[in-house]
Amino acid sequence: MAKNAFYAQSGGVTAVINASACGVIETARQHSDKIGTVYAGRNGIIGALTEDLIDTSKESDEAVAALRHTPSGAFGSCRYKMKSVEENRAEYERLIEVFKAHDIGYFFYNGGGDSADTCLKVSQLSDSLGFPIQAIHVPKTVDNDLPITDNCPGFGSVAKYIAVSTREASFDVASMAKTSTKVFVLEVMGRHAGWIAAAGGMASDADIDLPIVILFPEVEFDQDKFLATVKDKVDKYGYVSVVVSEGAHWPDGRFLAEQGTRDAFGHAQLGGAAPVVANMIKDALGYKFHWAVADYLQRAARHLGSQSDVEQAYAMGKAAVELAVEGKNSVMPTVVRKSDSPYTWEIGSANLSEVANVEKMMPAEFISEDGFGITDACRAYLGPLMQGESYPPYGENGLPQYVIMKNECIEKKLPSFETK
Amino acid sequence: MAKNAFYAQSGGVTAVINASACGVIETARQHSDKIGTVYAGRNGIIGALTEDLIDTSKESDEAVAALRHTPSGAFGSCRYKMKSVEENRAEYERLIEVFKAHDIGYFFYNGGGDSADTCLKVSQLSDSLGFPIQAIHVPKTVDNDLPITDNCPGFGSVAKYIAVSTREASFDVASMAKTSTKVFVLEVMGRHAGWIAAAGGMASDADIDLPIVILFPEVEFDQDKFLATVKDKVDKYGYVSVVVSEGAHWPDGRFLAEQGTRDAFGHAQLGGAAPVVANMIKDALGYKFHWAVADYLQRAARHLGSQSDVEQAYAMGKAAVELAVEGKNSVMPTVVRKSDSPYTWEIGSANLSEVANVEKMMPAEFISEDGFGITDACRAYLGPLMQGESYPPYGENGLPQYVIMKNECIEKKLPSFETK
Repeated sequence: MAKNAFYAQSGGVTAVINASACGVIETARQHSDKIGTVYAGRNGIIGALTEDLIDTSKESDEAVAALRHTPSGAFGSCRYKMKSVEENRAEYERLIEVFKAHDIGYFFYNGGGDSADTCLKVSQLSDSLGFPIQAIHVPKTVDNDLPITDNCPGFGSVAKYIAVSTREASFDVASMAKTSTKVFVLEVMGRHAGWIAAAGGMASDADIDLPIVILFPEVEFDQDKFLATVKDKVDKYGYVSVVVSEGAHWPDGRFLAEQGTRDAFGHAQLGGAAPVVANMIKDALGYKFHWAVADYLQRAARHLGSQSDVEQAYAMGKAAVELAVEGKNSVMPTVVRKSDSPYTWEIGSANLSEVANVEKMMPAEFISEDGFGITDACRAYLGPLMQGESYPPYGENGLPQYVIMKNECIEKKLPSFETK
Repeated sequence: MAKNAFYAQSGGVTAVINASACGVIETARQHSDKIGTVYAGRNGIIGALTEDLIDTSKESDEAVAALRHTPSGAFGSCRYKMKSVEENRAEYERLIEVFKAHDIGYFFYNGGGDSADTCLKVSQLSDSLGFPIQAIHVPKTVDNDLPITDNCPGFGSVAKYIAVSTREASFDVASMAKTSTKVFVLEVMGRHAGWIAAAGGMASDADIDLPIVILFPEVEFDQDKFLATVKDKVDKYGYVSVVVSEGAHWPDGRFLAEQGTRDAFGHAQLGGAAPVVANMIKDALGYKFHWAVADYLQRAARHLGSQSDVEQAYAMGKAAVELAVEGKNSVMPTVVRKSDSPYTWEIGSANLSEVANVEKMMPAEFISEDGFGITDACRAYLGPLMQGESYPPYGENGLPQYVIMKNECIEKKLPSFETK
């Protein structure tokens, strides 16, 4: 008899996490002999704990297909890290109660590093608490920091967005530089790893040579060297674009964004790294500047989705269900790169014990010797992930037609439960 | 005998100003009996004053065609306002010298309100200084504030970018709201007029209902009312997106962005309106927030160009040349709207004396009664301008293939000249 499945989205959402959801649901529907209904947790794992389970069988094939081109988490995500079984046994027992009440035998968890850890713990429930469940992790993170897999779905589209935006803004400032703005600063995500900042470097290539200076979190900020580099670029090109990671920091660990300034009420001023860097350049070199902070725009930009990324996000969801059907537990499907050019890849899998709590940093050989750019090795890695355009359909009003699901909850059978 | 033409780009550039350049150059090439070579001013009018004239006949048909999908000002723009003939006769005499030296009889100036004023002055050179020239203004401005024309090329693409980005970011924050971010604030351009901010309201429509609060420069900021509105939206939807114009201001005229805070060196902190609004909400209501400042990204985003906008930008360039060939002087082609749905329009023309120094503000009936949203009349106006997608070609590396022109200067014949 087919068991039901639980699927949830976890952590910061991306332009393509719904493409993975689409892969999970569509593939599960093709395996009705093994998998009954897919219940989606409303707001991630919280939906499981509170028995707030969305019945995806109520969603039409068309709505499910539209997930492929809809950014963000259609069922709601959450930032909620489950402690260990030893520390919070009640939560795991509650999960089991919910799973039992709704005959759930499969657990698909769509997230990054923290989520892989939760998924690993759930995969061990059979051993730890005697409840049989197959837990499969579906990789997702714009931070691109999961180990083993070639890359993480969500990253390729952010990379494309940042590379394209940096190219476009560089063209803009180039036009204005003679009498006005000479410096453009773009702040991008990535508190620990510089993968997204690196993508800014892709704006300049063999065909289109643009002056780009990158501030990586991996490289301690050296103000003199940075200002000298900015001046060199402006002297040569007439302008410069700076891509600064939100994680860029001084040698003592302080983020560039931390200015120590206070407003009239004595509150710390939350500024962002971009205005700090822009003002620093203005003070030292006198150049007029503009700055932008992309924030959510970068990770929600499904309108500029990378075709590679969308395909891999879908493929990861599909593969997760196939692994489950094959009887696997405690694994995560991965992207295995076969060649850079043409880009070919296949699907592999990794044990969750080797994925959870391991952060993949950017290799040192991806950062240029001066610390402000990317190497050819980095380009060879990033290019394929940004390849191809996957456009959503648009309506008559010029807006993309994203889907909002019905998100109907199934009837609750258990007493309520408070999450921490 | 055919006279040569001068073409220049002026003021802040847009995603489609090069489409107008394309219209001018391609159409001039079809009228070789009347128009010789099109010389583009390097960095706008400065190129005319310094005799830095780009020979566009050296550019291939393919390169000129690629201008249609390339953002920014391919020949360089400038912020340089010419004074009146009375105030700075030397500059006008210099212009005439350059025009005479290179047999220039047509002056095409591609810009906004200030540029229309310069173009008007040049159009009067025949009367004021006895030099025969036909000056035609080609409308361009993301601010959408030129009078008479239905809209200004450049605006439709910014509007589309802001509407799409607001929709995407709203989907994102909706996903995160249960345990994390509840408020997203996006800062957009428009110091005097709220046209661009209004476009944020288009993110929500009959099919996709999203909680959006707009802060217009036309509406004096009322903090209590604003915070109450934000709270209402969060209570109802669980989250809210705020679109704040850089021109949003307090009743006393101070911009929201002006905080009065100083850094360690005593310099005024340039913050941006978005972090101010986000922190204000956090302080009053305790909601976790994210904020973004789109800055140049919004006006350079040719990757998301509106088809209407691209077509009209091209059409304005083409019409300017046709007006010149017909013998017109001191005019600007305009877009005349015939119907909203389906959107139909034709080309008209306006006298520069009625365009220069007139700023078209957003009509009061476009702003909803509470001051935080847009009306159906506004939607009917904006929708057509954002209609259709005009994608640039992309390379294998996933980046748009924008063109960089050769920009070869013709031989100078005159002594050098210093601009102010």
